[in-house]
Parts: sequence; C-alpha cells; structure tokens
Amino acid sequence: MKLTILFGGASFEHEISIVSAITLKEKLSGFDLTFIFCDQDHRFYLIEASKMKAVTFSKGEHKKMPQLNITNGSFTQKTMFSSIEHTGPVLNLIHGADGEDGTIASLLDFFSIKYIGPRTDASVFSYDKRYTKWLCEAKKIKSVHYEVISSNEHKNINIPYPIIIKPARLGSSIGVSIVKDESELDYALDVAFEFDNSVIVEPFIEGVKEYNLAGFIAKGEIHFSIVEEPQKNEFLDFEKKYMDFSRSEQVLKADIDSALEAKLKNSFEKVYKNLFEGALIRCDFFVVDGEVLLNEINPIPGSMGNYLFEDFKSSIELLANSLPTNKRAKVNYEYIHSISKAKGK
Amino acid sequence: MKLTILFGGASFEHEISIVSAITLKEKLSGFDLTFIFCDQDHRFYLIEASKMKAVTFSKGEHKKMPQLNITNGSFTQKTMFSSIEHTGPVLNLIHGADGEDGTIASLLDFFSIKYIGPRTDASVFSYDKRYTKWLCEAKKIKSVHYEVISSNEHKNINIPYPIIIKPARLGSSIGVSIVKDESELDYALDVAFEFDNSVIVEPFIEGVKEYNLAGFIAKGEIHFSIVEEPQKNEFLDFEKKYMDFSRSEQVLKADIDSALEAKLKNSFEKVYKNLFEGALIRCDFFVVDGEVLLNEINPIPGSMGNYLFEDFKSSIELLANSLPTNKRAKVNYEYIHSISKAKGK
Repeated sequence: MKLTILFGGASFEHEISIVSAITLKEKLSGFDLTFIFCDQDHRFYLIEASKMKAVTFSKGEHKKMPQLNITNGSFTQKTMFSSIEHTGPVLNLIHGADGEDGTIASLLDFFSIKYIGPRTDASVFSYDKRYTKWLCEAKKIKSVHYEVISSNEHKNINIPYPIIIKPARLGSSIGVSIVKDESELDYALDVAFEFDNSVIVEPFIEGVKEYNLAGFIAKGEIHFSIVEEPQKNEFLDFEKKYMDFSRSEQVLKADIDSALEAKLKNSFEKVYKNLFEGALIRCDFFVVDGEVLLNEINPIPGSMGNYLFEDFKSSIELLANSLPTNKRAKVNYEYIHSISKAKGK
Repeated sequence: MKLTILFGGASFEHEISIVSAITLKEKLSGFDLTFIFCDQDHRFYLIEASKMKAVTFSKGEHKKMPQLNITNGSFTQKTMFSSIEHTGPVLNLIHGADGEDGTIASLLDFFSIKYIGPRTDASVFSYDKRYTKWLCEAKKIKSVHYEVISSNEHKNINIPYPIIIKPARLGSSIGVSIVKDESELDYALDVAFEFDNSVIVEPFIEGVKEYNLAGFIAKGEIHFSIVEEPQKNEFLDFEKKYMDFSRSEQVLKADIDSALEAKLKNSFEKVYKNLFEGALIRCDFFVVDGEVLLNEINPIPGSMGNYLFEDFKSSIELLANSLPTNKRAKVNYEYIHSISKAKGK
C-alpha cells in the first residue's frame, strides 16, 4: 500500500513527530512509504527512507534533500526539466500545532489530497481543551470538572487543591503542572501562560485509574484497539513522553471487566461519531467511582498508537481505504446569468 | 492602504462572493486594492480592477488573467524570467465553504499571510449551526431552541409547527425551508439533506423582530456598527440575498431603546471575544418577549456589512492594522540532542 507520512511542523511537538515517523517506518514496513518533512518554516522536504533518523533533522541535513510544493492533488518536486508528483494518501503525523489544530487538515482538503487524520472541525474540538469540554457537554460525555482562566484576568480558583493546570492548546504535557497548594500556583500559571493565553484548571485526582482506548470508523464500522492501563508516575513529562512516542511493542490488555470495557467503548463512540471520521484517535479516560470520564482526545496519537492494535498494518490499510471525500460545490453562474439577462446586459 | 480582496471559492455562495467583491471595489475606492479570485477548482487568478464585473467570471474570462500560487508570505505570479510577489493583508471575502469553514483561514495562516476574517476555530463555530448552538450554551448566550436531525436517522420532531429547516453548514438561506405542517416536512428535509447530512430544526416565529449588528475588536477595543432592522419577507431566499450582497447605501438605525441596544451589544461581545479577533462579523438577532436571541453569526458578512458602518473605510483600515499574529513554536532539537548524547551516538 502506498502511503505518505507527513511529519514535523511548527510545533512544540516537532521532535516527537520525528520520533513517531521513525517508529512508523518500522511498524509499516512492507508499505510503499514516502516521507515528507514539514520544517518549522513550513517548507516541505522529501526524505529518503534510509535518512529517517533523528539526527538528519537535528543536524539540518534535510535541507539538502528535495524541496516539495503542495499543489492540486499532490506534493510536487521540481526537477531540471519537469516535475515529479507525489500522490497517494497522506498520514498526517504532525503532533500539536499545525497537525492537530486544523491547519494541515484544511491545507490537504484545499489541495484535494486524501489523508488519515482529523478534519478541520474535529481538530478544533480536540486541540483546544476548552472546546473538548464543550463537545462533552453537547454530546453528554462525562468529563472531569474544570475551570478556565485567561491570562488577562484575576480570578479565584474554586477547585480545591491539589489541582492540575494545563495550557488550553498544547499536547504532550507541555506546560502542565500539578499544584499541591496555593504557594505553587503562581509559578504553575506563569509556566502555562507561556504557552497559551487560556489555561484549564482541573482537580488532580491522586491514584486515579486511567485507561486508553484507540479506534477508528472504516466503511461504516467502528474498530477498537485493546484497552490499555498506561504506566504513569504522576503524569508523563515531555521527556518521558518523547520516549513514549517511539513505543512499538504491543501492550497487554488492561485487566478490566466487560462492563467497564463497554462503558469505555460507548464513550469513545460518542466522541468519534459524526466528527472524527477519517482519523485514528486515542481517547484517554479516567475512572472515578466506576464512572468513565473523558480526560483527553488525541486525534493523532504518538506513533498512531500502533502498540494498542493487534494488527496495526491492516488497521491503517482499512482506514486508508475508507477516507472521507469532500463534496465540492459546483458553480454554474446561474444567478449571474439570470441577473445579467434581467438587466438586459 | 494596501489590501487584497480574496473572493470566489468552491462554494454555493461563489457568485455572491463575486458580487460582494465588486461592491467593495466601490466602497473601498482610494485604497490600493488587489483582487485575487479563487475559482471552483482552487486556482488563484489576479484580476485587473477594470475587469471586476460579474460577466468576467461567468464568461470564464478570468482564465486569461495571470495565475497565482500561494507561497510563504504572498501570492506569487510567475513571469518569464522572475516572479512578482503580491504581499500585504488579505480580506477574506469568500462566503460559505472555503472562506467561512476554516479552510482559507488555515491556508493563510500556514503561509503566514495576514488577513481580515475569522480564524480557523472561529470559522468552525460559526459555519456549522450545530456548533454555534454549542458556543451559545458554553458562553451563556441565548439562542433559539433547536433540534438536530441526521440524514441517516428517523426521528420525530418535537417542535410544534411552523418550523424552519436549515442545512447545518450553509449560509445565505440555501436549502432553508419554512414548514407549516407535516405535509410539507418530507420535501423540506429532502431539500436540506441535498446540502448537508445534518439539519437544524427550529420553531419558525412569525413576525419576530429581527436586528442585525456588526462589529470588530481593534487594538483591544470593540467597535460596533449601527443596529439595523432588516427588511424581510418571511426570509431572504437566495436570489433576494444575492441582490442584498451588493448593498452599498448606508441604512437607517433601527428605532430601538438604549436598553435593547445594550442587550444586543452585550450578546455580540460575548460571541466575539476571545474567538473572532481579526474578523469583522455580523450577528443576526431575534427579539422575543424582550429577550435577545442569537440567530446566526456571519463571520464574513455580505459586502462586509459596509452599509451598517458610518465610516466603513476607516473601520477596515483600523481592523487591518490590528490583525492577530501567530506565535510559532521554535524548534531547537534539544530533546533529540540530549537523547542522542545519552545513547552515546
């Protein structure tokens, strides 16, 4: 199967996107893979598979590789006398800004390039944690109680300590702090406001049970991964998460009863349906007193959550063959014609 | 002032975008205007000001004009031996799909082109009427009671007749019907489902008072237009709306008391703040029993609502000089470097 891995991006998660892409190179071996790197200045480069190593990018060696332009239906490589078109479906593997905020989705849609990944609207609802809360309220999905603080307001927090502070629009634990009492609050807010003007405050639930579940809809049917109980120590900081994005060993199924598994799947389906079609997403849940609470939606999970799937390759192939297509409006100038006629022009 | 009017798009409102652009040519005379047309296949053309007539496009004469590529910071025109870069802020005047759904916003953001218009997230919340309702719920903005029906479900409507049926994602009254009793329902749903898989059902409130208010935030301050009580006959169908988009005569202020005006402005501000910065939007309100209800957000109103502003030119200039800038993540490969070091590579 032909598949283009698009990675990098002007994002705080640029580096973990590189790690994700390297991991997928191995996990999707046998596929006809093309690697396209988006640098922090939004230039696209075609990366030879043998050069898919972290140092290629940290040493700037990608700059010697062919530059590509995005054009109608393809990424195009100019050669001396003609051009090479890189067509075929794209797997959007740009984590964080660009990839998960709707920018890349819109770009690929505009240029009629099919892709695995969240569409623009789904991106907006998963990238900004405030809007994920709105989604939960509208779709009656239970989630953790929260408050929003903006950098330009002085507001008391009504949630008792310990609390967790998160920038509204970043993934991978960047800028996130656990605040045990008021003395730690100002510093935690300063850190979070460095990344976003809005932060989300939630109760920090010590020792909460956490479960991850990935999945996608293809040809009208939902396909779930196994449920994982992730290892954690308080929460993953960026460096640990960085390592985490290179995971490729399949994990063990969480030891939960079928009633809880059904609840998790039900909540996942509510999140996914009529919004995330085209994407393989991972939902991270908390379970508190037997109640399933949505913690986070990862619309482009690290290394696509390959370690959660029994047959990851077939899953990607199934999804790639069931991607949404945009119905574009046809323009026939009927109104201009009729009005010109009425005016006698 | 230098300003590029971007219009057209692969949208059911393609033609009214042309009308809007022609109207703005007149209303912004004195500005250093560039006209860029996006055709239904997403090709960009540079249109000479003297050719800004509806027939240019309906007759396909734009195809003889210079084609442009979107590149970092500009629209670029290839010439025989070099290229001309069309820089400067863009006014996104593409109504409906492309312009109002977040696609053009993302495209301009990706290529670092400043623009007047809604950002990607604001577009998602105004383009899809379902998400506008979610926004209203989250921000405690009153709006009309509603139900959602999807094309793949059989669902009873609990709102008493007469009702109004709208495709979730189209503007300009396309696919909208007033349904007076059950005998008219199936046909109205068929019409609406031709344009979208989801439709919004609302009570049709006969003789409801309607008020329109436009505005924007520039340099931290909100600027309102006058309040208009639009003329209507039931509601504007597409052809009437088409004519409406060429409006250029300033309208009279609605005859309302200051308490109602304050309520309208308060509701507008709740909609706009922290979401629509960079755009000049028009909110359409209903007033029922003294209560202000948001009916619709027009993030790119027809001919930019020029007829609502006492000094339209200065308003556009003020906004163009106060456009949001994206803070892009800087990539320094610190994690890759530290991990490579730890691995001894």
